[in-house]
Amino acid sequence: MTTVRELAQRCKKASAAFGNLRSGDKNKLLEALALVLLEKRGFIKTENQKDILLAKENGLTDAMIDRLRLTDARIDGMAGGIRKVIALPDPVGGQDGAYRHPEGMLIARQRVPLGVVGMIYESRPNVTVDSATLCLKSGNACLLRGGKEAIHSNIALSELIRKALKHCDLSEDLVCLVTDTNRQSAVDMMGLTGLLDVLIPRGGAGLINAVVENSRVPVIETGVGNCHVYVDNQADLRMATDITVNAKCSRPSVCNAAETLLVGSDIALKFLPLVQKGLEAYNVRLHGCPETISILGDSVIPATEDDWGKEYLDYDLAVRVVSGVDEAIEHIGKYTSGHSECIVTESYKNARTFCEGIDAAAVYVNASTRYSDGEEFGMGAEIGISTQKLHVRGPMGLEHLTTVKYIIQGNGEIR
Amino acid sequence: MTTVRELAQRCKKASAAFGNLRSGDKNKLLEALALVLLEKRGFIKTENQKDILLAKENGLTDAMIDRLRLTDARIDGMAGGIRKVIALPDPVGGQDGAYRHPEGMLIARQRVPLGVVGMIYESRPNVTVDSATLCLKSGNACLLRGGKEAIHSNIALSELIRKALKHCDLSEDLVCLVTDTNRQSAVDMMGLTGLLDVLIPRGGAGLINAVVENSRVPVIETGVGNCHVYVDNQADLRMATDITVNAKCSRPSVCNAAETLLVGSDIALKFLPLVQKGLEAYNVRLHGCPETISILGDSVIPATEDDWGKEYLDYDLAVRVVSGVDEAIEHIGKYTSGHSECIVTESYKNARTFCEGIDAAAVYVNASTRYSDGEEFGMGAEIGISTQKLHVRGPMGLEHLTTVKYIIQGNGEIR
Repeated sequence: MTTVRELAQRCKKASAAFGNLRSGDKNKLLEALALVLLEKRGFIKTENQKDILLAKENGLTDAMIDRLRLTDARIDGMAGGIRKVIALPDPVGGQDGAYRHPEGMLIARQRVPLGVVGMIYESRPNVTVDSATLCLKSGNACLLRGGKEAIHSNIALSELIRKALKHCDLSEDLVCLVTDTNRQSAVDMMGLTGLLDVLIPRGGAGLINAVVENSRVPVIETGVGNCHVYVDNQADLRMATDITVNAKCSRPSVCNAAETLLVGSDIALKFLPLVQKGLEAYNVRLHGCPETISILGDSVIPATEDDWGKEYLDYDLAVRVVSGVDEAIEHIGKYTSGHSECIVTESYKNARTFCEGIDAAAVYVNASTRYSDGEEFGMGAEIGISTQKLHVRGPMGLEHLTTVKYIIQGNGEIR
Repeated sequence: MTTVRELAQRCKKASAAFGNLRSGDKNKLLEALALVLLEKRGFIKTENQKDILLAKENGLTDAMIDRLRLTDARIDGMAGGIRKVIALPDPVGGQDGAYRHPEGMLIARQRVPLGVVGMIYESRPNVTVDSATLCLKSGNACLLRGGKEAIHSNIALSELIRKALKHCDLSEDLVCLVTDTNRQSAVDMMGLTGLLDVLIPRGGAGLINAVVENSRVPVIETGVGNCHVYVDNQADLRMATDITVNAKCSRPSVCNAAETLLVGSDIALKFLPLVQKGLEAYNVRLHGCPETISILGDSVIPATEDDWGKEYLDYDLAVRVVSGVDEAIEHIGKYTSGHSECIVTESYKNARTFCEGIDAAAVYVNASTRYSDGEEFGMGAEIGISTQKLHVRGPMGLEHLTTVKYIIQGNGEIR
């Protein structure tokens, strides 16, 4: 059996010639991939069905099974996603920061692919296609390792990707799938310094923390979102209700959903019943501080210390009354995962204080945290949302799968 | 005794309020630091003398003792370096990429400090002042750990830095020095996830590799330079000689010095004697391939496999004859440390091939690798030269000690 290291070596070898491929040729490849997915949808669904059956046998929840499932609509969605990426500008090859050295050389920074991108992800099989698409468009090879629940689907999809590569006379090794889905294969990937240029984990907090803690390959940490909405003492309460309900309920399973509501003490008595009513429509369970309970009564579950740090990813919301913007900043500073934080206020001063005082990828004034997303931020598709500070922070698009090299054009200059 | 973790906690606490300090106030602080260094030069030299004496007792080489020594000229140099940084623009606070979302919010990317920068470095004590200066100007706190050889000097310099901080009513904990210089304190720093935002090792390959292999804090790998000069079959041989001699001999102890010379086989017979003559003036020892030896004779030491990968940092040069640009690219691809690589050629095609085919921070056509440096590249002072691809590649200036946060100004938008 091919080892993970051998697969990575193949990827690296294939990546060398690929980095300078023209955009036009990369787009042709992606169109070929979209076509083969649509053509072979029967094959994809048959293989996916094997994963679904095993999932049922293994007693996975309906929600988990739903995440696994590839329907016609989802296959159309994958192809549509590829075509969106085709339409995006190619970040590779452009130059910026050109500077003429006093002695004459022209020094410019040229954008180049990272090389080989490693991805470790969990159940959703469409991540296989999304990741390969973004890596290929940005000139990178990729080594993909999905979860064991989706293994039949992932093998099928990676076969089709390799078919498209072959069809375009490109090395099939540009996209390699690690088919061994035991824990060791993930650990192996974390040790591939010199072969992988970056490792991106996508999934739950457990997976991401394990990769951050153990990887010797540089990691981009993604996606854990313990997001807060702070309703300031000077908020428009109607707007605050709408934003809270939207941030919590429009899609609770995603990382940019709100998990904690902080409420200024001056308006708590008036605002908490309003927002409770809005959240009731979605059967949101409130986990409140004593003050919240004293206002809303016993329907509120008493919050424990755990609740403030928790990413529920469900119809649960922690609620705490704070004195004002400074205490809100202090609370968030203690519990934030550095993803997206929001203040609702009509006060110019408090808005400024919040924006300066919060250390997170995205800081919102009077808008829902749900907008933290590559497409919403105008960068087209995203490969994840970085919650770290190095290399990229916030939504990670095509450009962030590239690096630079300086090109110095001289005329014999010596120093 | 204060633990490394406690020091880092103090740094982190101090950093929170510091990140938004105005440029004017940061520059006042740096001017105060320059003044205190000049005023207390007697104290600095006295403390430095203790390190020098210990170094002599411990039998360090003259070159190593010279690196340790703080003379009046070097103290003036440190103060002058600080004033250069004062003159540089402050990267913090600026916004770019402002984008109006179709629904109305303004989404902009604001530059913010990283937070707390960890530095692990070796003998030269001026790195203490240089690092603190760059970190403070870019709004960061820093945790510094120098080598044991310079401990008295480093303690003296960090006391003066803290004096300047106090003089300006800022927290002294913005710059903390780890005074325990055993191996464990470095290992402790590598485990400070959540406290250090980045760890930058500066020193020899051994130190850097140890940090890259073991750190759980994100690392920026710096400075190992196995740089190549390739003299193409279509080179101007006079220019090639000048560039080779300059790249090897103008300062062999630094990372941008050349370590290997590759020579096209068509011009080897004519070029090798020319370059040998140029290098003789500096008593450079040549380590050659069999072909080189057959041309230059027995004064050339036979090169072993080790020589191709070695960063001599001395008057040594590995020499190999290659068939042309493709074999040069192949050789460099195998042995490069990703720092700086040079082709000397009059051929447009070969220059392009080399620039596209080499994967390194800086690729030179007809200019010496010795220009790889933050000041030479127009970014003012540098904190190191990154040989990794993530976050920053090549010279690392003030901007690379910052990250971004997205600021979203809305009007109640929900998704």
